[in-house]
Amino acid sequence: MILDCQSQGAKYVLKSPTSLPNAGGFLWNQQMLIQANCRGYAIAQFMQPDAGKYVSGPALEAKTFMQPEQPYYANHPGRFFYIKDNATGELFSAPYEPVRAPLARFEFINEAHQISWLVECQQLRVTLCLRLPTETAIECWQFSVENLSDNARDISVYPYFPIGYRSWMNQSGQYNSELNAVVCRSIEPYQKVADYFKNQSLHELTFLACERSADSWETRQHEFEGEGGLHNPSAIQNTTLANGQANYCTPTAVMQFKLKLNQGQSEKLHFIFGPAKNSEQISKYKKQFLNNAEQTFAQLGEQYQAYLAQGEGVLQVSTPEPEFDAYVNHWMARQLYYHGDVNRLTTDPQTRNYLQDNMGMSYIKPTTTRDAFVRALSQQKSTGEMPDGILLTAGAELKYINQVPHTDHCVWLPICLQAYLDETGDYALLDSLLPFSDSEQLLSVSEHISLAMHWLDKSRDERGLSYINQGDWCDPMNMVGYQGKGVSVWLSLASAYALKLWTQILQEHLGTTKPEMVFFNQQAELMNQAVNQHCWADSWFARGITDAGRVFATQADKEGKIFLNPQSWAWLSGAADARQTGLMLTAIEQQLHTPYGVMMLAPGYTAMVEDIGRVTQKFPGTAENGSVYNHASAFYIYSLYHIGQADLAFEQLLKMLPKQQDMLQRGQLPLFIPNYYRGAYYQFPDEAGKSSQLFNTGTVAWYYRILLEQLFGVRGSKKGLIIKPQLPSHWNTATIQRRFRGALFTIEYQRMVGITEQQVFVDNSPVEAQCISDFSAGNHYQVTVNLPIGLQ
Amino acid sequence: MILDCQSQGAKYVLKSPTSLPNAGGFLWNQQMLIQANCRGYAIAQFMQPDAGKYVSGPALEAKTFMQPEQPYYANHPGRFFYIKDNATGELFSAPYEPVRAPLARFEFINEAHQISWLVECQQLRVTLCLRLPTETAIECWQFSVENLSDNARDISVYPYFPIGYRSWMNQSGQYNSELNAVVCRSIEPYQKVADYFKNQSLHELTFLACERSADSWETRQHEFEGEGGLHNPSAIQNTTLANGQANYCTPTAVMQFKLKLNQGQSEKLHFIFGPAKNSEQISKYKKQFLNNAEQTFAQLGEQYQAYLAQGEGVLQVSTPEPEFDAYVNHWMARQLYYHGDVNRLTTDPQTRNYLQDNMGMSYIKPTTTRDAFVRALSQQKSTGEMPDGILLTAGAELKYINQVPHTDHCVWLPICLQAYLDETGDYALLDSLLPFSDSEQLLSVSEHISLAMHWLDKSRDERGLSYINQGDWCDPMNMVGYQGKGVSVWLSLASAYALKLWTQILQEHLGTTKPEMVFFNQQAELMNQAVNQHCWADSWFARGITDAGRVFATQADKEGKIFLNPQSWAWLSGAADARQTGLMLTAIEQQLHTPYGVMMLAPGYTAMVEDIGRVTQKFPGTAENGSVYNHASAFYIYSLYHIGQADLAFEQLLKMLPKQQDMLQRGQLPLFIPNYYRGAYYQFPDEAGKSSQLFNTGTVAWYYRILLEQLFGVRGSKKGLIIKPQLPSHWNTATIQRRFRGALFTIEYQRMVGITEQQVFVDNSPVEAQCISDFSAGNHYQVTVNLPIGLQ
Repeated sequence: MILDCQSQGAKYVLKSPTSLPNAGGFLWNQQMLIQANCRGYAIAQFMQPDAGKYVSGPALEAKTFMQPEQPYYANHPGRFFYIKDNATGELFSAPYEPVRAPLARFEFINEAHQISWLVECQQLRVTLCLRLPTETAIECWQFSVENLSDNARDISVYPYFPIGYRSWMNQSGQYNSELNAVVCRSIEPYQKVADYFKNQSLHELTFLACERSADSWETRQHEFEGEGGLHNPSAIQNTTLANGQANYCTPTAVMQFKLKLNQGQSEKLHFIFGPAKNSEQISKYKKQFLNNAEQTFAQLGEQYQAYLAQGEGVLQVSTPEPEFDAYVNHWMARQLYYHGDVNRLTTDPQTRNYLQDNMGMSYIKPTTTRDAFVRALSQQKSTGEMPDGILLTAGAELKYINQVPHTDHCVWLPICLQAYLDETGDYALLDSLLPFSDSEQLLSVSEHISLAMHWLDKSRDERGLSYINQGDWCDPMNMVGYQGKGVSVWLSLASAYALKLWTQILQEHLGTTKPEMVFFNQQAELMNQAVNQHCWADSWFARGITDAGRVFATQADKEGKIFLNPQSWAWLSGAADARQTGLMLTAIEQQLHTPYGVMMLAPGYTAMVEDIGRVTQKFPGTAENGSVYNHASAFYIYSLYHIGQADLAFEQLLKMLPKQQDMLQRGQLPLFIPNYYRGAYYQFPDEAGKSSQLFNTGTVAWYYRILLEQLFGVRGSKKGLIIKPQLPSHWNTATIQRRFRGALFTIEYQRMVGITEQQVFVDNSPVEAQCISDFSAGNHYQVTVNLPIGLQ
Repeated sequence: MILDCQSQGAKYVLKSPTSLPNAGGFLWNQQMLIQANCRGYAIAQFMQPDAGKYVSGPALEAKTFMQPEQPYYANHPGRFFYIKDNATGELFSAPYEPVRAPLARFEFINEAHQISWLVECQQLRVTLCLRLPTETAIECWQFSVENLSDNARDISVYPYFPIGYRSWMNQSGQYNSELNAVVCRSIEPYQKVADYFKNQSLHELTFLACERSADSWETRQHEFEGEGGLHNPSAIQNTTLANGQANYCTPTAVMQFKLKLNQGQSEKLHFIFGPAKNSEQISKYKKQFLNNAEQTFAQLGEQYQAYLAQGEGVLQVSTPEPEFDAYVNHWMARQLYYHGDVNRLTTDPQTRNYLQDNMGMSYIKPTTTRDAFVRALSQQKSTGEMPDGILLTAGAELKYINQVPHTDHCVWLPICLQAYLDETGDYALLDSLLPFSDSEQLLSVSEHISLAMHWLDKSRDERGLSYINQGDWCDPMNMVGYQGKGVSVWLSLASAYALKLWTQILQEHLGTTKPEMVFFNQQAELMNQAVNQHCWADSWFARGITDAGRVFATQADKEGKIFLNPQSWAWLSGAADARQTGLMLTAIEQQLHTPYGVMMLAPGYTAMVEDIGRVTQKFPGTAENGSVYNHASAFYIYSLYHIGQADLAFEQLLKMLPKQQDMLQRGQLPLFIPNYYRGAYYQFPDEAGKSSQLFNTGTVAWYYRILLEQLFGVRGSKKGLIIKPQLPSHWNTATIQRRFRGALFTIEYQRMVGITEQQVFVDNSPVEAQCISDFSAGNHYQVTVNLPIGLQ
């Protein structure tokens, strides 16, 4: 059990536990990503140029996308240090696995720029610290051990970095004494000649190098473990390791360092671990990182902090909710930055993910967002259709789910663009000329997007509803319309919303109404009408109509009776009137609300429904099958603010953001918003609320947008910064720092008796029309916002 | 260390070890295959209709073919029983993993029809016995425990059958009290709609059922292990298990049975474990196998022995080599039968494997061989070319390596057919009419094979050498000729041999010489000449000429200097003259012979050679890169007998066949011929000789053929049984039983002074022309073969 989980600025400390969760944090740079959990397990990927691994588990692994709720097991990849008392033979391991010795003290300290562990056992204090360089795919580990006892100690330290079973063709491992490194080699098998040439970019080597030479080493996993097993390896029971060479057997990287420590004395060791093309590269890394390691590692920390500082975002908050503040101020922009900076370590991000992740970059590096729109629209087809994924590198290919056709990608163009335009005012982008994937013809960005809107308009059936084909935003709803007939209510509403938004953007850009804009608005209304005519299901909107003509997600369904998205987007698109809104809110509250957030659908499917598809095969309460799916929750909250339900919206928002209590409740540290929390609350109450532990999600950009646009109401516009907060009614004060187009605004919100309308002052002068337009980059402004008592 | 490994008839006993190897045995039926090792680990596959698994490791596994030198690790799939003394809490597990407690006694008993373990620990004797039904994909486990102590004992028995991480989409597990079974469910994920329909044949359930109801159970792997770990599971430290239900987490099958045993008392439990489509099927299995389980399990053993008896083969021997006799009499035909009966559990066997495995069936069920020829030739293209794999079921597809074009498949038609015709005399087969894969035109088997011979003749370059394309018999030599220019010496010689053989078969069949036969013989001679002209490399034949025109496997090469196959087949094809033969024998002895057998090539490649291909990426000494590759060794031995080198041939033969000493030397029980033993003897001497532990190999049919045709010289022919032994010169006597076309021959060989030529007597009457043609099915004949002293 976790005894405590305290917030100390950006640090989270997990005190001495008798049993540890699988919670952890992650670090990344442009070349790699590592997810390290508090027990010592780790999952790492690097770009070569597609994401690959440099260590694996003990069996041949399937190649797949990042898994939620990753299962860990004794031989799971990780980074471990065994510490043996040479006098007594007593053994423990840091941070915790594989020995799992009872520890006198344990701290897992997640900072934005490093992950550390502090472990005390047998009167030895061990600290581990993992850092990454900003541009190299290398893990930098600092190990230190301090003698806390009254006696001199004679100990052996054994870093154990398992490499795993990576190839049935050829694996080896040996110690290179020139490099002070265990160097393991793994050949990627190929059967077709063409694959051989593709594989040439792969890194064959994985190495663990130290600043000093090892006293002994072992590179054979099986001989290391022996009959003692991982928790008490046979090799460690001997005075020295066997200096074994791994020849076509599972390799591992283990070294022994014999250390003598007087009372109070400590020793440090520095290691680098990662993939390499050849030993010259390892040698180069060694010079770069391990000559003068202590100083270099310190610099790495500073450089990484400087790198993170580029992603600090535009918002700092001080509110009546300290946990909310802690996440927003220390972690939220970091997660935004991760998504926008490395595109989830893929070379073919799904178009919708790419656009939404880059929507988030509007608040961090708007030029990145601009480039992303340019790249995405240059890969549009001249029919207006957007591809399923955006290729980021030469030679990249559409993989996995991107080989299945989805119908919603065009929708995200105006939706995401709006955030960029609001934040930057860069309407000039709309006039940039771009080609198509299948045509050299240059059209402006706004013509590209209009084509996309026409494609959405045309991709509808005789009822005026949008075809779903093999999926919309909900990938795994892949059999609703695969025969070319089924339609999506969500997509129809999202199309209506997109067309309306696009018309507004054009209006703002052109300052005039063109016939095309009238047409788009008309079509949007027709879409809303069609949904109302065919898919209003008494108290909520259904989810779609299948190829067989079955309207689904209605009272008639036992499972998948109600979906969240059609309701949220009916509010955004304007399809729902006030009467409907009341019914919908009640239905959502009764059927989808849980103590852990709002479920995406309910009840979760427990068996395959062939006319819906893959989602119905998923376990109830996970991913898209009735989980508290954060992305859908964000749409819900965004739409609640849209219809003025600020208190309900904030209540739901707080449930989505990670909190200290998550440690107990969801098994997660409050460092990131996961893609989902387990739902199916009425079906599997014991499991509900658990975190997926997966930080890849289109969600975080939306929450950031919600905070700016809606909660704190500091949205940009062509003219300036619009102040239009929707604070929860129980907040009497709040203060934020908002960066906007180079200026800094300190904004104090306060509720006041005696006023009925919001009042805004900049440096004590009242502001007209709630919009701060008279400001200059580089300046700092004091803004006061007076709000009536109790108003949402 | 292994203390002893005794042969007791068909049983192999491994006495109390302090450390166990990974050696094991295998059982199969038409539906499944299980490889169980002495530690308790297991690998199982079943047909649905392609080979699939019903348990996995703890991480998502890649789908791949059966791996040699399979790496085992703590969480590797297996079948285990924990036994806890409820009074003291003391724990051990049978057979050995995962607790690895020191055992007072350990026996691993491999019989042809069952695999058993006997374990003594804490004064309890546990025996485990695994049997299979003959036609169902179900494991039948009998567990028994006997109290050896002087006191009454109160114990808990926990079968632990891990299911593993089989799906990121949906996994669950629960105890079904009606079935007394843990039932786990796993959904095969799909992303493309078409795959959904393909997946419908898959079995979603894995279950462990017992004849009696469990006292408690656990179905969650993680909760079962807890912080105690697999070697000391937390769940077992409690009085009862938590009766947990697995919801979207790695499931496991664990039950607790509380047993009270008086002094000397024993208890038995029967379990069935395997895949199922639904609970009705489990219920049916339970009725079938667990009602009256003791008797049913006994019947299973008898039925399985009856099933094996159908594959007993045609040879029993008694020679001066008892270990040789043990393998040949108890195990050899079994391995032959396995290959021919289940085609390595694939639905698309490689054509060459299919033909050779079915060549072996000539000695067991010749009608199966006949059917296989009919099926294979019906899939021939009308150009004469054979496909890369033979499809066995409707809906089967060419997979993996069968998607890469290879050039040798036609060669095996006459070579394998000859064995069938010799054994059966069924020349009528040659007149059967068959279609082609791309044409309904019916041609006779002999016309089909002649077309194949013409295809071989035409698939040659301007020098008259056979194109290798992306590989010949050696799959991974895939880049020698992928540009369409490179040629194979082995394939040129094998083509020459095939054409000559085919001419002989036609001659025998027709009794006359037709122009086509003359043509084939002429072309065969031209092939031999071309090889001699372009590829004789001073003292041996090279292996080929690459696309770039480089003759390789000559003195000029540092690695891959000499290959075994071109030499062996030059002898078979008649390309080598006496002078060359002497040089070749010397080169082979100097460069390829090792104490563990003859290597396929040497030195093993240590780095990629692009104009040769994949084989050069393999680890030296493994599979085709310089291992003692048993299939190539068989060709070598066959060819040595062919040129009258009987003593050398037998010396090599003995090295290939598994022996008791293999337990120590190669980590393998002497139950089957593996596909290879590690080679690279001069490069990695410490590793040389180790067994691949993989029993899938085209080898065993050849060794059987060698024993019959060459060593004991009891080859069939159109006219009858030809007696032409090539006993090693140091054997003075030997006796065999040879079944042949329904008759039984007891043949006694004896060396005699005073004779210079072989003499054969049947029931004391001399035999003309060494051929026993006057015999009748159902009769038993006594044959005496007198041989001159010392003649090979």
